[in-house]
Amino acid sequence: MTGIKERLLPLVEKDLEKIEAALEENLTPHVELVKEIAGHLMFAGGKRLRPLLIVLSARICGYEDNFVTKFSTIFEYLHTATLLHDDVIDGAVMRRGKPVANAVFGAPVTILTGDYLLARALRIAAESDSIPIIKVVSGMTEDISEGEIIQLIKKGDVSFTEDEYMNVIRRKTGVLIRGACKTGAILAKASTEQEDALTQYGDNLGLVFQIADDILDYTANTGELGKTVGADLREGKLTLPVIHALRESSPQDRNRMETIIANPDFTKDEFEILLRLLSTYGGIEYARRIATGYVQAAKRALEIFEPSETRDILAMMADYALSRRS
Amino acid sequence: MTGIKERLLPLVEKDLEKIEAALEENLTPHVELVKEIAGHLMFAGGKRLRPLLIVLSARICGYEDNFVTKFSTIFEYLHTATLLHDDVIDGAVMRRGKPVANAVFGAPVTILTGDYLLARALRIAAESDSIPIIKVVSGMTEDISEGEIIQLIKKGDVSFTEDEYMNVIRRKTGVLIRGACKTGAILAKASTEQEDALTQYGDNLGLVFQIADDILDYTANTGELGKTVGADLREGKLTLPVIHALRESSPQDRNRMETIIANPDFTKDEFEILLRLLSTYGGIEYARRIATGYVQAAKRALEIFEPSETRDILAMMADYALSRRS
Repeated sequence: MTGIKERLLPLVEKDLEKIEAALEENLTPHVELVKEIAGHLMFAGGKRLRPLLIVLSARICGYEDNFVTKFSTIFEYLHTATLLHDDVIDGAVMRRGKPVANAVFGAPVTILTGDYLLARALRIAAESDSIPIIKVVSGMTEDISEGEIIQLIKKGDVSFTEDEYMNVIRRKTGVLIRGACKTGAILAKASTEQEDALTQYGDNLGLVFQIADDILDYTANTGELGKTVGADLREGKLTLPVIHALRESSPQDRNRMETIIANPDFTKDEFEILLRLLSTYGGIEYARRIATGYVQAAKRALEIFEPSETRDILAMMADYALSRRS
Repeated sequence: MTGIKERLLPLVEKDLEKIEAALEENLTPHVELVKEIAGHLMFAGGKRLRPLLIVLSARICGYEDNFVTKFSTIFEYLHTATLLHDDVIDGAVMRRGKPVANAVFGAPVTILTGDYLLARALRIAAESDSIPIIKVVSGMTEDISEGEIIQLIKKGDVSFTEDEYMNVIRRKTGVLIRGACKTGAILAKASTEQEDALTQYGDNLGLVFQIADDILDYTANTGELGKTVGADLREGKLTLPVIHALRESSPQDRNRMETIIANPDFTKDEFEILLRLLSTYGGIEYARRIATGYVQAAKRALEIFEPSETRDILAMMADYALSRRS
């Protein structure tokens, strides 16, 4: 898998440039501070995964237009809005290698900038003059906020199951990625079969992306990740590696893990113990195995399309989603 | 003006009942807690001003339909979303005679419930299948968040001018009230003249409503108001009565006021001093005079419509907006 990012990037370079420009151009607040706060996070090296997916999804259905790039911003704005609110909610410290917006500008104005971006996204969706797109976008936003709330309710709850976890990540991450792919198909006036295939692809890709994120929280180092390793656990978020290890462990080891999880101020040594137990019970490998299944399902969904560079890129993105180091 | 509420209520009783039912029916989260938090505020005796305005605006243009009631919920959900976020941002304590949601349920889930309501409002707007309505609703949401941000930036700034104040209240309150009236006209497929007249009416009514709110913050008692009197000033929000008094005062009195405003923990005695200075410089009367001008403008805008009970009700609402005690 090495070098997949290096192979992928040149293939989407031009699209990424257009997306960057559109993100700048469509962010038009009357208040300079809004632009500053939104930009603080949005122009700090995000992957532009969601805008890219809508562009590529439209393209694989034979459609190419500058409008697609404009509408692709919807998904990045929405994504940024949720991250801004998340960081306030989680009391996060770093994101993308920088202090979070709420640490720099304060929580109040960060919350409001999130609201603005949410509204901006929906306003741009409205400019598509397409009711189906507007419904996808507004429906997504409902789903995401509910996913976040479920996650919040379940914080620190060691009885959190794999099914509940899948439900949460499908809502909070999957929805946007699936929505981007689906919207690309709608813009392209694709056939139902194509729209379904891309929705399927996006659904699986979204799951891969979030599971990989949750794995990285245990396996990356802070420099690579741009945020603190182990942050999920410190915030009481139980993710697939831990859910699996808890399920598989001896009563005694389960007890040790639960004690660590129960204390958000666990020490570095305690975190090491937890990592060792994750390894003993194969938590990371299990999560990786599950994600690999979704990578394959994502690629399978693409098979209805004729072979093309765009199809290859989409397939590579599924591999990249799991193999990435940040 | 006495008794205007008592005369008004029976005339809109049936509409209010339908609106209550629609608010219950269209709030359909998958998560029980969302309903509980949204309901904590939404079913605590709000005035339903915004939903009522869309129903009445459609009616005065000759349109009556259950859909109107459904779409009227958009405005109450949006309004509730902004109040939930406001209370988090302001660290408010009470609203409508109850502890604020963030005090009961915590800020994180309150922020997310606000997000959910914002999204729900836009989802319902999308169900109108009307692009103009969707544009009004998503545009409003952008405007509101920007209005709130300007207000936040200007907190405690004694150089805040009347023009800036008008700009803020037009965005943060006016937009929703104007939007409700305009949406009623759009649903009714009213003529441009009628739509403009109702937009004009709503614009003026919104200003009256917010100025009256800001007056009440100095003149009501806490029991009537359902929240702490003087809260605006404690949060550093400079409103029309204070802006006027600061502008008119002697350098010495201005200095005294500025000192009190600069300290959010001012004592009851200091607040009394400030109230006396407001009175000396006619801050409350000035605000009331300005608001009275907007009441008249709101009523004038209605003159293009034939006399009818609906027109009378709308006119009464303009009077009520200023004369109300809570």
